[in-house]
Amino acid sequence: MKVVIAIDSFKGSLTSLEAGNSAAAGVRRVFPDAECIVRPLADGGEGTVDALVAACEGKKIEISVTGPLGEPVLCQYGLIEKTKTAIIEMSGAAGITLVPASKRNPLFTTTYGVGEVIRDAIEKGCSHFIIGIGGSATNDGGAGMLQALGFSLLDKNGTPIRSGALGLKDLASINDKNALPKLKDCTFRIACDVTNPLCGEKGCSAVFGPQKGANKPMIQEMDQWLARYAALAAEKYPAADPSYPGAGAAGGLGFAFLTFLHGKLESGIQIVLDETRLADYVKDADLVITGEGRLDGQTVFGKAPIGVAKTAKQYCKPVLAFSGCVTSDASACNAAGIDAFFPILRTVTSLEEAMAPHQAMKNMEDSVEQVFRVIQTFPCHFPL
Amino acid sequence: MKVVIAIDSFKGSLTSLEAGNSAAAGVRRVFPDAECIVRPLADGGEGTVDALVAACEGKKIEISVTGPLGEPVLCQYGLIEKTKTAIIEMSGAAGITLVPASKRNPLFTTTYGVGEVIRDAIEKGCSHFIIGIGGSATNDGGAGMLQALGFSLLDKNGTPIRSGALGLKDLASINDKNALPKLKDCTFRIACDVTNPLCGEKGCSAVFGPQKGANKPMIQEMDQWLARYAALAAEKYPAADPSYPGAGAAGGLGFAFLTFLHGKLESGIQIVLDETRLADYVKDADLVITGEGRLDGQTVFGKAPIGVAKTAKQYCKPVLAFSGCVTSDASACNAAGIDAFFPILRTVTSLEEAMAPHQAMKNMEDSVEQVFRVIQTFPCHFPL
Repeated sequence: MKVVIAIDSFKGSLTSLEAGNSAAAGVRRVFPDAECIVRPLADGGEGTVDALVAACEGKKIEISVTGPLGEPVLCQYGLIEKTKTAIIEMSGAAGITLVPASKRNPLFTTTYGVGEVIRDAIEKGCSHFIIGIGGSATNDGGAGMLQALGFSLLDKNGTPIRSGALGLKDLASINDKNALPKLKDCTFRIACDVTNPLCGEKGCSAVFGPQKGANKPMIQEMDQWLARYAALAAEKYPAADPSYPGAGAAGGLGFAFLTFLHGKLESGIQIVLDETRLADYVKDADLVITGEGRLDGQTVFGKAPIGVAKTAKQYCKPVLAFSGCVTSDASACNAAGIDAFFPILRTVTSLEEAMAPHQAMKNMEDSVEQVFRVIQTFPCHFPL
Repeated sequence: MKVVIAIDSFKGSLTSLEAGNSAAAGVRRVFPDAECIVRPLADGGEGTVDALVAACEGKKIEISVTGPLGEPVLCQYGLIEKTKTAIIEMSGAAGITLVPASKRNPLFTTTYGVGEVIRDAIEKGCSHFIIGIGGSATNDGGAGMLQALGFSLLDKNGTPIRSGALGLKDLASINDKNALPKLKDCTFRIACDVTNPLCGEKGCSAVFGPQKGANKPMIQEMDQWLARYAALAAEKYPAADPSYPGAGAAGGLGFAFLTFLHGKLESGIQIVLDETRLADYVKDADLVITGEGRLDGQTVFGKAPIGVAKTAKQYCKPVLAFSGCVTSDASACNAAGIDAFFPILRTVTSLEEAMAPHQAMKNMEDSVEQVFRVIQTFPCHFPL
């Protein structure tokens, strides 16, 4: 029996590999000779660097860059030398969790550090980039990142604009004369699971501004500044399209990748599935195990387990999912390719106890064991 | 597909039939044409009357009898007219839960009401008795019950002894001259899951006395009185055997049934399995579902789900169990015939929420559905 296991991390409890290895142990309790292949999984958000570094035998680099508030922060990113690929989570350099609630204000927060990480990776020889852009603290349209990469974003006096969305207020011209030359040879796959445009009522200012600390007047102003920024960009880059789905991701960082760096916005899970070559492993598996911390009605909308299930179903493989908990609307997952799903809870317990890594690993192993005992018990065709 | 379902009640949450019907609904979500036969289950304790009345198309009788403290209590018992059988839980007439903690004192608590229930059933035509004797508040050796049935338990002056264990202090002679004549034609199957003798350090006074309110001096005295009671009984009933396993059940009520009523002590689950004719249903089933509120390491010691599993395994049937929760030592159940077991919890929740009947029924249905989806998914022989 060959079992391919790719479980998303249980956030705050288990990494993808911890969950997968525990599941494998549960399988082996029932089928000691089973070949269990544990593949790392992520959805383009938290855990993506870890998953791809593990999957591609890369390493992790830690550098000090400019944080969202201008202070230095330590940021980790992944480096895969053999494919010259860097894996970056933008939240490591400009994420909302780096900013205390009382200091959240998108007028001032910057993506400059994201550009510094990219620059560092280019200096280390990378020419391919996989960048997850969830969880940003910023609404600067990627202006900070572009400046860090050598683009000139100038006010009417030819002075570089200030940090943060507020800098866009003064933006008068953009040019790439001093942009890093190697950028021309770089490809950018951007893990982006939102479809918001740059501006307007579904734009980044209106939709994501409030959670980043913006009030109504700020939202209106930032929206106008971003519209002008897009118009200025279009003068030099005629393909600039602020209405492109995802242009508004990460406070307009999506627009910057699309317009200035020829980035491609893709679903996070699809990038991870590609890069971890899951299909290659799945195609001769007998069954596939996936899961995530919480399986619910939202899971079917592009979350990692459904990506795994879709890949498995291309090869007509059975798919089982294990999760920290399931909600009653999780039944939508059955229709989306997960043949059966199981919460790993064993008894009434507190959230804290349930999420304690040692307990969660044991629960995963015990739960997988019992399901595989069912498979062992019903080996033959059933009279239906 | 024919599925036989026999789940013990989830005490404080679901009756046996509620649990079983919810499981059946879960099966039918996956296999709409499945024949699901829900059989009531109990272990000889709480829920046994309900289970056997449901299984045997009997009815419930409610009568007022003498409670353990001498005050009247309403007691329900089951009556199966076609087989002239009464099903009685002794705890309904002399149970510990009928006595507030502050009034628990086995010197005074009596089994008189148990005898009254038996008498009532005899008057209604019963000649077969199934009596669960768990949960007693008494340590009177069944003296109260015997008196209610017409036996004479007299002091040296020929006066009937007092109620409670204290009455045994004055016991000088026993005779059955005035015992109900119909008792001779009656059979008594006693559901008894303890093996304690009447007297000594493993006797009822020493082992169960404390939880009924006895202190050390009382235990010593009661133990001596019971020993003398047994000796007096042996004068008239030479087969009287106070060391017989279970003679000490329910404060010596076991001894009274054995000695004076030719009762047979049996495991509670075995009686229930016999009376509900579970084997008849199981023998042509495709699989069997069982369960109980909590599946743990104790389950293997004669609890209802293991009784079901043993019956099923006589016919080589697969057995699945569903329970409110499972503990980590529940894996012993796998070795004892339960092929796989599943807690029905779906998410982190409070005990109160988990036990709310509506929620528990939904959880049961959802959990069974997903397990049967596994069975549906793996219909063919698996490459092991």
